[in-house]
Amino acid sequence: MEKELLLMLPGPVPMPERVRYAMMRQAINHRSAEFGAVYADCVRVLRTAFGTTNDLFVISGSGTAGMEAAVANVGKEKEIACLVNGKFGERLYKISQRYGKAHEIASEWGTPLNLAALEERLEQGAEVVTLVHNETSAGIRNPAQEVGRLARNHDALFIMDGITSIGGDLVEADAWGVDIAITGSQKCLAAPAGLAMVSVSNRAWERLTKNPPYYLDLAAYKKSAAGKPMETPYTPAVPLFLALREACLLIEEEGLAARIARHRKMSQAVQAAAKAWGLSLFPKIDAKHGYSATVTAVEYPTGVKDDEVRAFIKKMGIVIAGGQDHLKGKIFRIGNMGAVSAPEILATLAATQVALKKYGYKLQGDGVQAAGEVLG
Amino acid sequence: MEKELLLMLPGPVPMPERVRYAMMRQAINHRSAEFGAVYADCVRVLRTAFGTTNDLFVISGSGTAGMEAAVANVGKEKEIACLVNGKFGERLYKISQRYGKAHEIASEWGTPLNLAALEERLEQGAEVVTLVHNETSAGIRNPAQEVGRLARNHDALFIMDGITSIGGDLVEADAWGVDIAITGSQKCLAAPAGLAMVSVSNRAWERLTKNPPYYLDLAAYKKSAAGKPMETPYTPAVPLFLALREACLLIEEEGLAARIARHRKMSQAVQAAAKAWGLSLFPKIDAKHGYSATVTAVEYPTGVKDDEVRAFIKKMGIVIAGGQDHLKGKIFRIGNMGAVSAPEILATLAATQVALKKYGYKLQGDGVQAAGEVLG
Repeated sequence: MEKELLLMLPGPVPMPERVRYAMMRQAINHRSAEFGAVYADCVRVLRTAFGTTNDLFVISGSGTAGMEAAVANVGKEKEIACLVNGKFGERLYKISQRYGKAHEIASEWGTPLNLAALEERLEQGAEVVTLVHNETSAGIRNPAQEVGRLARNHDALFIMDGITSIGGDLVEADAWGVDIAITGSQKCLAAPAGLAMVSVSNRAWERLTKNPPYYLDLAAYKKSAAGKPMETPYTPAVPLFLALREACLLIEEEGLAARIARHRKMSQAVQAAAKAWGLSLFPKIDAKHGYSATVTAVEYPTGVKDDEVRAFIKKMGIVIAGGQDHLKGKIFRIGNMGAVSAPEILATLAATQVALKKYGYKLQGDGVQAAGEVLG
Repeated sequence: MEKELLLMLPGPVPMPERVRYAMMRQAINHRSAEFGAVYADCVRVLRTAFGTTNDLFVISGSGTAGMEAAVANVGKEKEIACLVNGKFGERLYKISQRYGKAHEIASEWGTPLNLAALEERLEQGAEVVTLVHNETSAGIRNPAQEVGRLARNHDALFIMDGITSIGGDLVEADAWGVDIAITGSQKCLAAPAGLAMVSVSNRAWERLTKNPPYYLDLAAYKKSAAGKPMETPYTPAVPLFLALREACLLIEEEGLAARIARHRKMSQAVQAAAKAWGLSLFPKIDAKHGYSATVTAVEYPTGVKDDEVRAFIKKMGIVIAGGQDHLKGKIFRIGNMGAVSAPEILATLAATQVALKKYGYKLQGDGVQAAGEVLG
């Protein structure tokens, strides 16, 4: 088989061998002590990555299924305040529209959230707040702790999408007052795509709304997880659970703090390269918002064509992301989620540097050198 | 690693090596021509197994997610007639209750459906009918063609759960008038658990109801599948798609007709063994209903304890199923879905025969011999 492309995307990301090989096992019964132990291993490690002691479940479905599980179980017919400064904030808003009275609190993609407008909406009676912690469409880290404080002050539930932060950046769901936190398997956990994880606080359990989708009914997950052996209510995607368990054990072996420090260092290296090239990072941050520690969004210089640059990089075996929706052609994005370390970052930045130069940009300086100094 | 248990369950089932090994690949981009080709291969083969030329989608989620997708997209606020003669019929009824006005048309588990009551309900205006084609909880095959005819006569939509028949027994979704057919990956397709497939007729598209769950919105699947490359609306469980593709190619290589004939022969061998032992098959069939071709449910003789029998068989490395819910302890079930052929059937029947004898049942005859004569 030909060598796989190196995916430097904001997910999916390269998986360690142990994670991949765990999937090739013969089928096992998902109503068995053995499967229950796999599930329990995942939950133990994920609780540390979420920063929570709450109930935590793994749903066989993509991150979007996890987002919907959150909204559908506590948001039905509720006033929902949806903070939006990127594509995934928009998705949470769209999902919220299916269940409750959703109010979009929109900022331009990649600009700070309007927390004053959130406070106003909370004063007007919003009962649920939705936030994307790390907005990969724009490369911005949103102030989850601050949003949690506002939600708690007004006794609203706080749903936080941590799909691209949990396991790669610091998340303290309990300390921040997050009632339902969500992540996905194919991002910072470096597991295969197809699983969503949600944690659920006691406050959220007390405020469950009626009649969520059958498949996403969190009460059913709770009941099955409490059994001996620990189970899921419907047949789980067993190979993905086996892979997730290995991914979780790898997190435990590396240590969560070291893993977060690694992610931060990798993103700082990319940021340093962009700066050295003379390019602007896309997000407009303030004291409360930060650059994402798991994906870096960089503005293209005028005249340089996205499709040419990324096609050239891809010819060298590396895939970086362009912009989504209205940002198509305007930015490129380099992910550093999961198992990524210096070799992948250096290769990616070198390829990008060559491509930028080749397609007409006059580099201000050597981004690879700048990155290497951060990494070394 | 210790040898895996041989799972002779009505799912999950043993997977061929090619299917398992397909999963260990490094992550690939799901928004790529390569992934689109994988998805297209699956759809091409699945259409033959469904007996349909309709749109067909693969959802990352278990069979239950597929059942819910069917009901949620056409059943909202509708009158739904739910045929129930086993556990999965009950599940479709429970799901239907979340969306529309669901009417249960119940028979004892494993006894013929009440088609006269269905007709009455259709005359009273039922707009949707739900049926489980092959009810594994009871080992009975329900008359899908007949139900389809009744539904069509009254212009109702017909949702058919083919989770444990499609790919193992004859299904002709189009000829039978099925509007939405559903299957799951870990049954007769012999792929890993975690994917659901649904086919959708033009009549169903014309009658979509509003506001299904976001994750299960079939219109979104249609839009993404029509793209170039073919895509899913949300991140798919890529390793499971890779495995499903191999499983589908294996079906193509074996030939669907040969595969169905193999399943029928394997189930006939189990039926012959039960008969030789002097045990009754659990289902009470009539001219319209049949014994399942993918799982055989057998009544325990009086005094023989389910837990002893199955524990002994498991000690020999084989797992068969007991009864579910109120049938616990009363029946045992032997699955023959997917890649199962004579060696697995003979081993299972031999182990069962030994166990029955050991735990007090006086066998009338040699079931292994009877089965071997069917298989040879």
